[in-house]
Amino acid sequence: MIDRLHRLREATTALGADGAIITHPANRHYFSGFPAGDHAPDESSGVLVVLPDSAVLFTSPTNLPWAENTVRHSVVARPWSRPWSQFLGEQLESLGVRRVAFEDRALSVADHAGIIQSSGESRLIPAGEAYHALRAAKDEQELERIAEAARITDAAFVAVTTELNAGVTEREVAWRIESAIHELGGDGPGFPVIVAAGLNSARPHHDPSDRPLQEGEPVVIDMGARVGGYTADLTRTICLGEAPPEFTARYNTVLTAQRRALSSIRAGMSGRDADMVAREDLTNAGLGEQFVHGLGHGVGLLIHEVPSLGKNSEDILAPGQVITVEPGIYFENWGGIRIEDLCVVTATGLDVLSAAPK
Amino acid sequence: MIDRLHRLREATTALGADGAIITHPANRHYFSGFPAGDHAPDESSGVLVVLPDSAVLFTSPTNLPWAENTVRHSVVARPWSRPWSQFLGEQLESLGVRRVAFEDRALSVADHAGIIQSSGESRLIPAGEAYHALRAAKDEQELERIAEAARITDAAFVAVTTELNAGVTEREVAWRIESAIHELGGDGPGFPVIVAAGLNSARPHHDPSDRPLQEGEPVVIDMGARVGGYTADLTRTICLGEAPPEFTARYNTVLTAQRRALSSIRAGMSGRDADMVAREDLTNAGLGEQFVHGLGHGVGLLIHEVPSLGKNSEDILAPGQVITVEPGIYFENWGGIRIEDLCVVTATGLDVLSAAPK
Repeated sequence: MIDRLHRLREATTALGADGAIITHPANRHYFSGFPAGDHAPDESSGVLVVLPDSAVLFTSPTNLPWAENTVRHSVVARPWSRPWSQFLGEQLESLGVRRVAFEDRALSVADHAGIIQSSGESRLIPAGEAYHALRAAKDEQELERIAEAARITDAAFVAVTTELNAGVTEREVAWRIESAIHELGGDGPGFPVIVAAGLNSARPHHDPSDRPLQEGEPVVIDMGARVGGYTADLTRTICLGEAPPEFTARYNTVLTAQRRALSSIRAGMSGRDADMVAREDLTNAGLGEQFVHGLGHGVGLLIHEVPSLGKNSEDILAPGQVITVEPGIYFENWGGIRIEDLCVVTATGLDVLSAAPK
Repeated sequence: MIDRLHRLREATTALGADGAIITHPANRHYFSGFPAGDHAPDESSGVLVVLPDSAVLFTSPTNLPWAENTVRHSVVARPWSRPWSQFLGEQLESLGVRRVAFEDRALSVADHAGIIQSSGESRLIPAGEAYHALRAAKDEQELERIAEAARITDAAFVAVTTELNAGVTEREVAWRIESAIHELGGDGPGFPVIVAAGLNSARPHHDPSDRPLQEGEPVVIDMGARVGGYTADLTRTICLGEAPPEFTARYNTVLTAQRRALSSIRAGMSGRDADMVAREDLTNAGLGEQFVHGLGHGVGLLIHEVPSLGKNSEDILAPGQVITVEPGIYFENWGGIRIEDLCVVTATGLDVLSAAPK
């Protein structure tokens, strides 16, 4: 944890600041240890202030006992008074911090104005996603949690899909998956389970509905267990009963593209080049237009985080990063196919964590 | 829905603006019909732009089919290009909107900067919580959903607590409640279930742990089912086995304060005066210091919304608002007691929706 704060302070110095305020819940969790989420955008559970010689987590009196119990030994928890933006500005002024880096993607215009109004001569410097980037490469403890989450995810997928019959609704399948994750020891799903059958599978994002699954149609299942704050991410596309030739052909095209990506991607590649591996395959198969999203994304405390694997991504893959590889194709009048594995980036390639059958 | 947009346009005019951009997920849902949530603060699912003669929901190409299927007939869905803040700025300029109200509590500093950079002469006017307030009084359909959510919540509480024995963990009780909500037809919990036993019950906010419930200690259960986007909210404090005299005495003090609040609060009162009803009772009983939070809050698409019932609230209660009444007292070395009902504000008093036994 000292190492994490050390890296945060280095990044703060690189931004030309002598202090940082961390408002993003995942970054706050990572650097302080306090695991609370936010009711974003309405309610913040706390703000971490990191100066060269101290790190203070300010939170509500209500949250204070929880914070005191969970912050790392290098961080102290203190109560704020409301409105916290004004309180924080006053703290910054009284501490004499002149240049303060802040997370402009995780601070509202109103809270920013509140801080400025009371912070005297302290100046706020936007940090962009500089602090997010520090979470991209995972340490050993993080990798253990993610591997455990992936193991539970695979087992839940297998347990639910081996007993699946036509007629059960998308919503019921999603619930069975949630139950299986719980029974297998997960803390819950890391994001809402997607079960999209038939035409619904043409939507990469979909809320499970009361539509019953039918034989011969594509069913996209996108799911991930959460363990100790960390999420797994797995997608499989299945077909109940006998698969029509069209399903099999399209499925195999996506699978081939995914396999080539899994065996080609390694540390040092850009997110754009990684994406291109699968995009080339699908484009050559005449399906480039149907691959409407990026190839993947980082996963950790958040289901979507640095790095991004997509057409415009300049992120450079590095060892220890955890990413998804998930090519998908979608046809409005037919449905979709997506196959996704969770992987750890290494110097020589990818360690694939997902073991659910394809 | 036309009525909702009509009220939004009136509020926009009152802000001195000729257009509004709605970025808060609950407000976007309420005014557009599109039910998607956000991965706040990182990812927005869409922005609703309301002008005098049109209402357009901009969203990602990925979300577009879902949006087209769910927006009301007075709203059209259109794809954005990324970064959406820049896209939105360009739209505002090309539409010639000069004064645009925006939700400064639901727009990040970075997105605000992106809009301004590309919006030419359009000027952004902070709306504060003006649009939130339009959701406070519920219509008939909303009240039906909330009443159904409350019914499921009560039934789930009874089903789980009547079969409760010492030794079961907080986490397991929370899971049983979640399962019961599902079995009874709820869409899921509207917020993470709180089960806090013994000393843990001294924390108003608490993540269920592996601590087993014991006889004779307070167990605070705070839960709510979600139905059609709307949430219920219920808290009960129970004691397994024989209740010690101290528990009974403290419980009855809170119950008396709650009952007086339930029979005294009505439309026209301020949130401060409503809070004061229970606060006076508890203060007279020597427990004012232990009542560390407000008496209650509005509930709807969000678990915490307008109006607020608390020491500093100037909100005025109005018919059709749905609020909680939840006095609580907390002792660090003993535990806590909180009793919460969900109520509809009427001209003459409160309709109590919660029917779980106290």
